[in-house]
Amino acid sequence: MRLTPALAAALLTLVAGAAAPAAADEGMWTFDNFPIARANQALGTRIDQAFLDKVRLSSVRFGGCSAGVVSDQGLVLTNNHCVATCVANLSTQAVNYAETGFTPRTREDELKCPGGTAEILTDISDVTQRMQAAGAGLEGQAFTRARDAEAGRIEQEACGGDANKRCQVVTLYRGGQFKLYTYKKYSDVRLAWAPEDRAATFGGDLDNFSFPRFAIDAAFIRLYENGAPAVTPTHFTWKADQPVEGTPVFVAGSPGATQRLLTQDQLMTIRDVVLPMDQLIASELRGRLIRFSEESDENAFIAMDPIVGLENTYKRGLGRMRALTDADFMRMKAEAETDFRGRTSGVDPWTALSAVQPALRELYAPMALLEGGTGVGTTPVAGGSQLFLWARTLVRGAQEREKPSAERLPEFSDSRLAAVQSGLFAERPVYPSLEQVRLEWWLSKTREWLTVDDPRVRGLLGSESPEQLSQRLVAGSTLADPAVRRALWEGGLAAVEASQDPMIRYLLSIQDETRAVRSDWETRVQAPTDRASEQLAAARFAAYGDAVYPDATGTLRLTWGKIEGSDVPGQRWGPFTTFGGLWDRATGAAPFDVAPKLLAARGRIDPATVLNMAVSSDTIGGSSGSPVVTEAGEIVGANFDSTVLTQRNAYGYDRNVNRSVIVTTGAVTTALRDVYGMQRLVEELGAE
Amino acid sequence: MRLTPALAAALLTLVAGAAAPAAADEGMWTFDNFPIARANQALGTRIDQAFLDKVRLSSVRFGGCSAGVVSDQGLVLTNNHCVATCVANLSTQAVNYAETGFTPRTREDELKCPGGTAEILTDISDVTQRMQAAGAGLEGQAFTRARDAEAGRIEQEACGGDANKRCQVVTLYRGGQFKLYTYKKYSDVRLAWAPEDRAATFGGDLDNFSFPRFAIDAAFIRLYENGAPAVTPTHFTWKADQPVEGTPVFVAGSPGATQRLLTQDQLMTIRDVVLPMDQLIASELRGRLIRFSEESDENAFIAMDPIVGLENTYKRGLGRMRALTDADFMRMKAEAETDFRGRTSGVDPWTALSAVQPALRELYAPMALLEGGTGVGTTPVAGGSQLFLWARTLVRGAQEREKPSAERLPEFSDSRLAAVQSGLFAERPVYPSLEQVRLEWWLSKTREWLTVDDPRVRGLLGSESPEQLSQRLVAGSTLADPAVRRALWEGGLAAVEASQDPMIRYLLSIQDETRAVRSDWETRVQAPTDRASEQLAAARFAAYGDAVYPDATGTLRLTWGKIEGSDVPGQRWGPFTTFGGLWDRATGAAPFDVAPKLLAARGRIDPATVLNMAVSSDTIGGSSGSPVVTEAGEIVGANFDSTVLTQRNAYGYDRNVNRSVIVTTGAVTTALRDVYGMQRLVEELGAE
Repeated sequence: MRLTPALAAALLTLVAGAAAPAAADEGMWTFDNFPIARANQALGTRIDQAFLDKVRLSSVRFGGCSAGVVSDQGLVLTNNHCVATCVANLSTQAVNYAETGFTPRTREDELKCPGGTAEILTDISDVTQRMQAAGAGLEGQAFTRARDAEAGRIEQEACGGDANKRCQVVTLYRGGQFKLYTYKKYSDVRLAWAPEDRAATFGGDLDNFSFPRFAIDAAFIRLYENGAPAVTPTHFTWKADQPVEGTPVFVAGSPGATQRLLTQDQLMTIRDVVLPMDQLIASELRGRLIRFSEESDENAFIAMDPIVGLENTYKRGLGRMRALTDADFMRMKAEAETDFRGRTSGVDPWTALSAVQPALRELYAPMALLEGGTGVGTTPVAGGSQLFLWARTLVRGAQEREKPSAERLPEFSDSRLAAVQSGLFAERPVYPSLEQVRLEWWLSKTREWLTVDDPRVRGLLGSESPEQLSQRLVAGSTLADPAVRRALWEGGLAAVEASQDPMIRYLLSIQDETRAVRSDWETRVQAPTDRASEQLAAARFAAYGDAVYPDATGTLRLTWGKIEGSDVPGQRWGPFTTFGGLWDRATGAAPFDVAPKLLAARGRIDPATVLNMAVSSDTIGGSSGSPVVTEAGEIVGANFDSTVLTQRNAYGYDRNVNRSVIVTTGAVTTALRDVYGMQRLVEELGAE
Repeated sequence: MRLTPALAAALLTLVAGAAAPAAADEGMWTFDNFPIARANQALGTRIDQAFLDKVRLSSVRFGGCSAGVVSDQGLVLTNNHCVATCVANLSTQAVNYAETGFTPRTREDELKCPGGTAEILTDISDVTQRMQAAGAGLEGQAFTRARDAEAGRIEQEACGGDANKRCQVVTLYRGGQFKLYTYKKYSDVRLAWAPEDRAATFGGDLDNFSFPRFAIDAAFIRLYENGAPAVTPTHFTWKADQPVEGTPVFVAGSPGATQRLLTQDQLMTIRDVVLPMDQLIASELRGRLIRFSEESDENAFIAMDPIVGLENTYKRGLGRMRALTDADFMRMKAEAETDFRGRTSGVDPWTALSAVQPALRELYAPMALLEGGTGVGTTPVAGGSQLFLWARTLVRGAQEREKPSAERLPEFSDSRLAAVQSGLFAERPVYPSLEQVRLEWWLSKTREWLTVDDPRVRGLLGSESPEQLSQRLVAGSTLADPAVRRALWEGGLAAVEASQDPMIRYLLSIQDETRAVRSDWETRVQAPTDRASEQLAAARFAAYGDAVYPDATGTLRLTWGKIEGSDVPGQRWGPFTTFGGLWDRATGAAPFDVAPKLLAARGRIDPATVLNMAVSSDTIGGSSGSPVVTEAGEIVGANFDSTVLTQRNAYGYDRNVNRSVIVTTGAVTTALRDVYGMQRLVEELGAE
């Protein structure tokens, strides 16, 4: 599973924290409120604060993924699907690392991931009082903006000017707490190894979100500092022994977003409005991209990474639809709400949240399609067109930078500009044919869902058709050139307004419509939701104390569980798969074809070597790449997926069905040594 | 709106009849139980039995559409979208009648629609007792099959051997009544006129299911008998005057399927399982076809008709999803159920139907994908591949004809063979590239929804991928040749089993899996649903008497209403649009471009001429082409659509929002006379 840009946007979320007190293995806990005693009791372990510190400082956030430092020279284990975009960006159709694997002979051959950044969480401090004071007495958009501005100020004060740090005000318990997270930031991240893509994605979309599984979904990146490998004395110890059923493990990572304390009314909105639109239009894009990819080898190359990402999001959405229409599961959710309400008096955030739903139902489509950042859905603005998103950053960035930081859209406050620039200036390939597919789809779906007579649609399209407009914008734009983007950014508003680039002109022309949608959303949906959710959080603390953990927000969390199989209908299996199982499952026809180099190495691999395993930890999209470690701080695998039944854990944890899917360090060692000739990494890991 | 083959299959349905007594304008009434007094009272009209007889004998069922006889020489008015497949079949890319319109200069130039048949209902008789006796004391599949066999016997006894008649045992009130419908059958139907497609589809998918509307969605066919135009002394009188708001009208047609007395539990299954799968995978096919059609002019030509059909079904599905997630509407449905249950004692079909739902939820996907005929959904078997469907008919037809009629699958009983053959032998173009898209999509969605490890999926695919298998089947099949099909049909089982055609061999190879799915469905879903629904029907008669009408079943019904606009949120407008409004709405960009010939005639057309109008009659898919007639038997328009809000009328009638959309006879006369040079038809209509 992976955290897409759309889901990453969801981190600016509407969602609320977890409800009732956590069950035995439940909880994506923050590092400053981790229930050490409880975990030790549940697992029979003896971890302590030093363990937590070591795990935190060895844990890495990389793009929308998680990762773990595994050597003192900045080597980091993550998933192959977490570097897939990097691999795609570094590849051409002729030199296609997805096909061959990326196996740099020397450290100097490791290549920089365009725009890649990585972060390690170094400090957490409480800023709740400042944040709540900033919004006091305000309503609507003023409330939202005052808080955004205060967050920007806090971040700027703490990190301003330091390119090696990143500061982030994190909203926890949906406004119950605000914490300042300070990260050490690495802006130079190199790709150190990736397997053949098929070795990592054996079974493709069909085996995604399932177990038993047979995928070497692992890769290495390396953190660089000042042009040299980062010195990382704190790191996990590589342990490649065969894993043992029942072993307690901890999983550290940055799960993207959960929605476990949404009220019943909020969940119904997701079931009736959000998921149906997201899934239906994603399915059409999928169809367009599949056909596109069949048209030529070039198109197949171009569309591979986008299709994988889209199918992943779509399949996760299916799992969520099933959860929300599962009568038993929803009854459990309803009972939890009843219990909670029974313990609450004096305030009624439920009614307030209920009152927001008509506006949310009305505004979801325009907000998702025209602006994004709804926090509840996955529809990508502009179909994820890179040119469009760059142009939006340039146009809005120029407009916003004319104002004082506190008055800007929050994503352009001073504290965020460094990240904006690093994304904007990164060298990334742009495929006009793919851009065309994305934009045309987006324009036509926007017209369909908002209806052709909507004035905003008229503003978006003028008298052009989606086909004509998208073609004109893509064909004429020069924004694929990073130098052009840099010049426009540095030239500010004057340069942007003087630009004749059609994509820039287009973004200038639609600012009124899109900003109005956002403003409407913030006033009628976001602000009242935030206000009521804050009340809900307070009520939750009052009812259950701090035996609750916050909803996932894309920030570092620690969860735990045991290596174990599953014994529920539709999901009965032991905890391990082996290379022998892989050979058995292979049919030769995609996606059940074994990758060529891996197949060639078959004779060298012990078929009994464990390849993947299942763990009862509480993870979700964004947890991909999470180091799986023992109480001794040894890394035994990297989380890369969960099962489709597990998808309900967006809304609530169910220990019986919740299983994370892990690629073992043993399998990774085997791949490095026996398949891909990466002995130098094996030695660096101390795995011999 | 149109009745697709998938929906037509839905006529073998699970659905139940209407619930509470009908509201003022509500009801798709059968001609033998039409509430004359009630209609006269509601409308202030004075119709009588003679009126009903005339309307019935002037009403035509044509494919999945409705139509009306308008001259004594077999001329019949229907919708252009009802002849779209005929137009596509008669066209080539070079001579494309969709583009140019079809305007035969003389009657001899009118062309036969391949496979086209039309029917006029001549007699209705009651066979309830025989049918109920046939199933008495039986359970499961035995129950279903005994009834099917009895229906086949009844049909054969009444019509056997007469090629000019068709007999059909119609299930009404979900088993509350069975009627034998006897039709005069026309196997030679000619296309007499069709406008430019864009004149009929102005606004395309975007304006579909909406009003105000500006579409000349009309066409003429002609019934032939013994090689000459049929003599039809009974027909509607053409009346092309400007229509008047408030005029009472009657709409006669064959609405496809309603589901108004599904219980709450049944509706939840549709909401949670049926509609989501149907819509999600249709959306992907839509994406594939859109991209396919963009690849070349040839592909655009090939995909046009399929895309229109698919988008129509999809948009209707969206309207239904909205109805089922509309809290107010569902509350009304729940209250109706409560009222009904309150009037019932002794039996509890609700609990029995509730108990069927888990099986329905489990079996819907395999049944819909592998077999079709679920009666509740719209997913087309094999993606609607013509080659596949022919092969299935040939293989199963051969296997079944080895048995006595009463033991066969009902679609191959003696009484149905004539219809099977006429479909099978019709000369229709087959486009391999389109077949490939359909089959590949179908195989990949079947694999996805049933999962790759399902033994049925393994049986379906063997070790081939959907891409490989579909390519092999399409490339090697010779079934596009009608002579090949005829030879295989006439050669019987020996010929079929000896055939080396890969599509035939494939269908032979998957009979075990597909027949098993059907058998499971009939036993666990169909039979218990039928049994309980029959009880429900009896309870309904007991509670409400005969002031209820049966659910639509694709057979002739009469409904009524007034010409009137709408005044509910999202739907506020008067009853008429004009040619002037069309010129105003046109932007020049598809689908808002006026068709060239129509545009060229602009100067000759009075802009105040009414083009389309809204009527409060109770219609649904299959009502397309329905004659709209005054109490004097004058035809004033043809129904061709309804609004998206009206889509809830699958589940319940709501007079406030329910509006049918009609193309007026005035607009048709204008088009014939002023645009398409069809003066000879104007004269035949007596419209001067």
